[in-house]
Amino acid sequence: MTDGGRGRLIALEGIDGCGKSTQARLLADRLGALLTFEPGATALGRSLRSLLLDRDQPPVAERAEALLMVADRAQHLAEVVTPALEAGTWVVTDRYSASTLAYQGYGRGLDASGLHQLVAWATGGTDPDVTVLIDVPVDVAAARRRESHEDRFEAQGVQFQRRVAEGYQRLVTEATRPWLVVDGTGPVDEVAARVWSGVENCLGPEVGSER
Amino acid sequence: MTDGGRGRLIALEGIDGCGKSTQARLLADRLGALLTFEPGATALGRSLRSLLLDRDQPPVAERAEALLMVADRAQHLAEVVTPALEAGTWVVTDRYSASTLAYQGYGRGLDASGLHQLVAWATGGTDPDVTVLIDVPVDVAAARRRESHEDRFEAQGVQFQRRVAEGYQRLVTEATRPWLVVDGTGPVDEVAARVWSGVENCLGPEVGSER
Repeated sequence: MTDGGRGRLIALEGIDGCGKSTQARLLADRLGALLTFEPGATALGRSLRSLLLDRDQPPVAERAEALLMVADRAQHLAEVVTPALEAGTWVVTDRYSASTLAYQGYGRGLDASGLHQLVAWATGGTDPDVTVLIDVPVDVAAARRRESHEDRFEAQGVQFQRRVAEGYQRLVTEATRPWLVVDGTGPVDEVAARVWSGVENCLGPEVGSER
Repeated sequence: MTDGGRGRLIALEGIDGCGKSTQARLLADRLGALLTFEPGATALGRSLRSLLLDRDQPPVAERAEALLMVADRAQHLAEVVTPALEAGTWVVTDRYSASTLAYQGYGRGLDASGLHQLVAWATGGTDPDVTVLIDVPVDVAAARRRESHEDRFEAQGVQFQRRVAEGYQRLVTEATRPWLVVDGTGPVDEVAARVWSGVENCLGPEVGSER
């Protein structure tokens, strides 16, 4: 979807197993938007993703983890997101800044104000036009994940995911930019309809009129 | 060298080819200190060093480069530097925070105040007790480097190294923590004697008395 102006950036967020990757794909398809994700959408990012998520990689200290996440985002912006937005292309990303605030802030317990500054510096101020939280109870999300292929974050267990989920709720409450909280339970197409109607509501008639 | 209290942290800095790696080794030997370096002193850091320096690795955007450098430092602190200092061991590191300010700030042109905040967050406030700048003219340093094995920073050429060198001079001028500027020209043992006498002067009689 390109309309001559700068593209819009829509971020999908939520705990592991909430279904946001599926919803990001469906939303991007319907919008004709570029679908992308974090971490790991660039050549550098693929190496960083492995260092961050794979359980057979060396240990990563908490601050280093946050810094690698935002390094991946800085590269993602430089190579993928910013050029697309500047060309007028809409972008749907599966995870963005809120993931760092929720996982490394609320999940790992790093100080929120330092993380906010870090995230802002890494993105150079490119914030999503809307962030969509796919809201699913922690137990439901846990049941959806395949335990045999758990990455480092999934392997942190339910208490960690609960802190992340609470973190997302806090981010919604404190947000200065638009958040859309969508009930992520039920069939995929029902959730997709809720996401679509919320995005349409939030980003105005230009979304609906061009589809 | 351990004296019961918290260890001291001494950072050696300078442009590529200034001789600081040799001087760091000689100083650590004489102090009985732990010798370490950045980037790449941990298992995670070895991967990051390759991503940052090797010319056959994928492109790295400027902000991503700064973030990977400080991620390496955060891991280095967590695994190596902080445990040593807490055990009362003195630590000599070949590069530390000033390298990020000089290379990514003055060399690459990233904003200084954002980088200062980033560096402070990554280190959690662990600053060197003294930073030693091995000061060598850019042309002399260039002649010392073997062009066949240039890494990404060395391959940036003399103008880049000149900006980094000017950056170090600015950091010395603006510093709130002790800097020691040592003439790095001439024979290795003469430079080592200057480094030693400067460190002794700066960190007090406890350095000399225990040797």
